[in-house]
Amino acid sequence: MARMIRPLANLYEQLRRLPGVGSKTAMRLAYHIIDMPEGEVRQLASALMGAKDSIHYCTRCFNLTDGDLCSVCADSARDRHTICVVEQPQDIAAMERSHGYNGLYHVLHGVLSPLDGIGPDKLRIRELFLRLQQEDISEIIIATNSDVEGEATATYLAQLLKPVGITVSRIAHGLPMGGDLEYADEVTLSKALENRRAM
Amino acid sequence: MARMIRPLANLYEQLRRLPGVGSKTAMRLAYHIIDMPEGEVRQLASALMGAKDSIHYCTRCFNLTDGDLCSVCADSARDRHTICVVEQPQDIAAMERSHGYNGLYHVLHGVLSPLDGIGPDKLRIRELFLRLQQEDISEIIIATNSDVEGEATATYLAQLLKPVGITVSRIAHGLPMGGDLEYADEVTLSKALENRRAM
Repeated sequence: MARMIRPLANLYEQLRRLPGVGSKTAMRLAYHIIDMPEGEVRQLASALMGAKDSIHYCTRCFNLTDGDLCSVCADSARDRHTICVVEQPQDIAAMERSHGYNGLYHVLHGVLSPLDGIGPDKLRIRELFLRLQQEDISEIIIATNSDVEGEATATYLAQLLKPVGITVSRIAHGLPMGGDLEYADEVTLSKALENRRAM
Repeated sequence: MARMIRPLANLYEQLRRLPGVGSKTAMRLAYHIIDMPEGEVRQLASALMGAKDSIHYCTRCFNLTDGDLCSVCADSARDRHTICVVEQPQDIAAMERSHGYNGLYHVLHGVLSPLDGIGPDKLRIRELFLRLQQEDISEIIIATNSDVEGEATATYLAQLLKPVGITVSRIAHGLPMGGDLEYADEVTLSKALENRRAM
């Protein structure tokens, strides 16, 4: 028994491909799954296929949805004049948890990353401009991450949007709430100073 | 969008039940799976069901197998006079990796744990004694873990096996190879002293 039996090895290899799952975790999960009641394994497998089969992108904003429009686009109570541009669907989930935004979204599904061969045509930028023609939008809030690629994408989008004549804003960067000045990193602190507001 | 869409929430809940998968990991895995090519998700789902459907216990030693006998029991080159008793199938995998043992195994599928309601009848002890009648066994090596339950199970088995007149041994406990005396914990060190060998 130098090698694992084939169905176990197969399960191990499939689990091993998931992000953050190393060889020990994959092994532990594989043995756990073999010990699970058959019904539970079946539920897990069908949850996998169910999610993959029924979830696709909202035809308007490219958020995840199991219908035609996502729950935000379909919600008539939302402000239809503002679009918040994010990198990924999970960013929308984070924004929604904050309860601080009541407008629409647009998911780019990535950021500009020339080294990885991701140019503007790989992102949902064309679709964003199509929305600007079809919808009555007065402000675009760019909420890409504050890493190098996110900042570059934000700058690129802002330049592209300038001729359109819409207010373009960027979410604020500064000290996190409850954060100690003493422990803030230099970049965040200088950003917080630079972005100071009159009060 | 206060709540997640249902197929995503369902996948999240199923992943959340796996050992060592917290809510953030489950969320990250769920989004990753939705982004995976459909073929890969299908492979993962079928690996899950394939492992569950085709893997069962060896009819002799209760190791995992996709056949009738496991690869150890079916291997005619193994020493058929020694049985190494382990808690779980994964313990066999660890023993086999060590290349230090060439006999047969017997998997208890648990340890005695009165607090969890696991008594001798829940373990494969009856099946072990049945093997002693049917096979020509001269030594039993008890290789349960060295925690409280493992030690209690080893003691219980040794007492039960004494009247049978077979050599019963316990795997050695002491300093791990390459281990520093300075950093060894007290219990291991006193065990290593107690089990010292003439040389």
